[in-house]
Amino acid sequence: MKRNVLIIGAGGVAQVVAHKCAQNNDVLGDIHIASRTLSKCESILETVHAKRAMKQEGVLAAHQVDAMDSAAVAALIRETGAQIVINVGSAFVNMTVMDACIETGAAYIDTAIHEDPAKICEIPPWYGNYEWKKRDLCTEKGVTAILGAGFDPGVVNAFARFAADQMDEVKSIDIVDINAGSHGKYFATNFDPEINFREFTGTVYYWEDQQWKETSMFASGREWDLPVVGTQKAYQSGHDEVHSLAANYPKADVRFWMGFGDHYINVFTVLKNLGLLSEKPVMTAEGQEVVPLKVVKAVLPDPSSLAPDYTGKTCIGDLVKGVKDGKDIEMFVYNVADHKEAFDEVGSQGISYTAGVPPVAAAMLVASGEWDAKTMKNVEEMDPKPFFTLLDKMGLPTRVQIGGLGGEDKAWDA
Amino acid sequence: MKRNVLIIGAGGVAQVVAHKCAQNNDVLGDIHIASRTLSKCESILETVHAKRAMKQEGVLAAHQVDAMDSAAVAALIRETGAQIVINVGSAFVNMTVMDACIETGAAYIDTAIHEDPAKICEIPPWYGNYEWKKRDLCTEKGVTAILGAGFDPGVVNAFARFAADQMDEVKSIDIVDINAGSHGKYFATNFDPEINFREFTGTVYYWEDQQWKETSMFASGREWDLPVVGTQKAYQSGHDEVHSLAANYPKADVRFWMGFGDHYINVFTVLKNLGLLSEKPVMTAEGQEVVPLKVVKAVLPDPSSLAPDYTGKTCIGDLVKGVKDGKDIEMFVYNVADHKEAFDEVGSQGISYTAGVPPVAAAMLVASGEWDAKTMKNVEEMDPKPFFTLLDKMGLPTRVQIGGLGGEDKAWDA
Repeated sequence: MKRNVLIIGAGGVAQVVAHKCAQNNDVLGDIHIASRTLSKCESILETVHAKRAMKQEGVLAAHQVDAMDSAAVAALIRETGAQIVINVGSAFVNMTVMDACIETGAAYIDTAIHEDPAKICEIPPWYGNYEWKKRDLCTEKGVTAILGAGFDPGVVNAFARFAADQMDEVKSIDIVDINAGSHGKYFATNFDPEINFREFTGTVYYWEDQQWKETSMFASGREWDLPVVGTQKAYQSGHDEVHSLAANYPKADVRFWMGFGDHYINVFTVLKNLGLLSEKPVMTAEGQEVVPLKVVKAVLPDPSSLAPDYTGKTCIGDLVKGVKDGKDIEMFVYNVADHKEAFDEVGSQGISYTAGVPPVAAAMLVASGEWDAKTMKNVEEMDPKPFFTLLDKMGLPTRVQIGGLGGEDKAWDA
Repeated sequence: MKRNVLIIGAGGVAQVVAHKCAQNNDVLGDIHIASRTLSKCESILETVHAKRAMKQEGVLAAHQVDAMDSAAVAALIRETGAQIVINVGSAFVNMTVMDACIETGAAYIDTAIHEDPAKICEIPPWYGNYEWKKRDLCTEKGVTAILGAGFDPGVVNAFARFAADQMDEVKSIDIVDINAGSHGKYFATNFDPEINFREFTGTVYYWEDQQWKETSMFASGREWDLPVVGTQKAYQSGHDEVHSLAANYPKADVRFWMGFGDHYINVFTVLKNLGLLSEKPVMTAEGQEVVPLKVVKAVLPDPSSLAPDYTGKTCIGDLVKGVKDGKDIEMFVYNVADHKEAFDEVGSQGISYTAGVPPVAAAMLVASGEWDAKTMKNVEEMDPKPFFTLLDKMGLPTRVQIGGLGGEDKAWDA
């Protein structure tokens, strides 16, 4: 039941996806990777060969495509015979790539929400502005689309589902994302700085008391005492998964907390207050029109360049509170990943690793039929157990603390 | 003995210069102002008329000129009959404007050192790289050129000369520049951000033990307990006047100290460490070549926009130590200026005021013959007393503390 794969994008996450597809090409078949810049795809292929990552002999090919051009993507799907498209390109290409999948019948998997370059932080639920508008069309055409199948969103949605399935009622879902690693640079973002900063410049939406509420970045923070990484400060942030989990668990409060050190906050605050994170063009004294955020991106380290020196661990998990048999219960479902181990295996840092492994697991579940939904789904709408089983084997084991943070610690299936 | 004046530049300092020339047009004659952007000159003329600043009826006219084009400046000098050029344009135009003066015989006055846009912080003495190379030519042609006749450089050079004249031997000259005012913005520079930041990104040169020594910005700081503004922290910085005073008082240590708050230092440090203060172009992901510093300049408030809300005072002075009749002596020679008073008088903030009044005083001394040197001079090479007498009347009174900081406080001529 081979399902040839086309990977869209050639950044740090795409490299992880390529390696993991190669390691599982007995399940996934031919592997194609395409981006605007052919040489970036070719560089990724070289790292796959250097690590001897191909499980068995097979096709591994690079292509050039403008992912904003839906017809070009559709043509490439047909040319490559791809049956599954893993879109880890820029957040601006989701809808054109999805349209190409709907047109050709290929399954679509992505790891982050669609964004319009000209807009920051649209009204919630974010999926309702773009992706969900195509749900009926996917159903009609029998096209599988798995939305937000990275780590967060993605695995954390499955964490929430896993905990919720063990409760009669879910009261709250708090997703906590801590990167306790160190890249050794003065300042860097772990993802494309443009996307990274866009996440934090707008309104922070969260779901509480069955309604959308608003706060602003760094206004709501608390300390979390987490496994392995210890006590860390995290702040409420806007994040994709809040928008689908709120729809699927409308009675629960849903919040996302991102860990930030004081240094990150200081740099971010300076840049934001000066207007340097703006996506709106300014005019220099010389009459050149420039988008400040794109200049900030240009001076920051390329996130993929951080990998060789990145050390330390990440801890990402869901604290889920609810009621079972009339009693309050809590579980913390989580994963700990290591930057150096990620680099040793696939040449990427841990943040790219955690984002890039899950969509490959999702693709394997689509290939096996277990997640071949023939419609559009967010990850929490799919059975989490086969997903965790694959992730355990692929390097991202799921653990649980029973009774909440600091409770009995065990593997999810122990 | 009228000497028609041509002002080059149309920024905040140029506005002060225009007002002060107008207030003294009985001495200075016709007043012309020219810059790349005619409308900026016209706006300044409007403020002069609004304040009824013209002492007597006379010519006040705006012109467009590219000050990088020496022949164009020379043509404008001839066309306007200007006998004194006050150059308060960008630091990049000094040499082309000076060349035009040498060609036409007009006297030249500026307030800051020449800079090459492509270079930051050249080897000391800075004047030796550009201006002083033209000294012999000025002498030969009998052209007066008064270099660095703003406040610092400028008045502080005269402060040093005034103190030195009362000593048998000068041991040290420490120039301290404190702006204890508040503009109410998150962050702003008081001068063109491009020039302001360029001052602080390079090596800090100072003169000690009869040789050039080096430190870096914010590496050497100390608290100063000053008149009116109180205790303030200032840091050794590179500054023009160190380079001429070291040549004229080679046996004295010469240092410059600039006051900075922790917030300024934090913003500056973030921008510098990220590479956003670089004058070297970077390439965005979209292939646009951009100079980061020019984008920072574009997002920061226009310094001239700060004036209406600026409150508080500046204190700039020289602590001069030496020996007189075998005994150690110290004097602090200084001025205190007020932002709001400056705005009320000429519509500019205090920093522009302190920089813009002195070159007009210098022009009046050139007109009167007292400073008509017929060669190139730095301010400390001229008699400071008529300069102070004019500055007292023009809004920048000179005071002295005898015995050093905190000593008996009196007017310079009391």
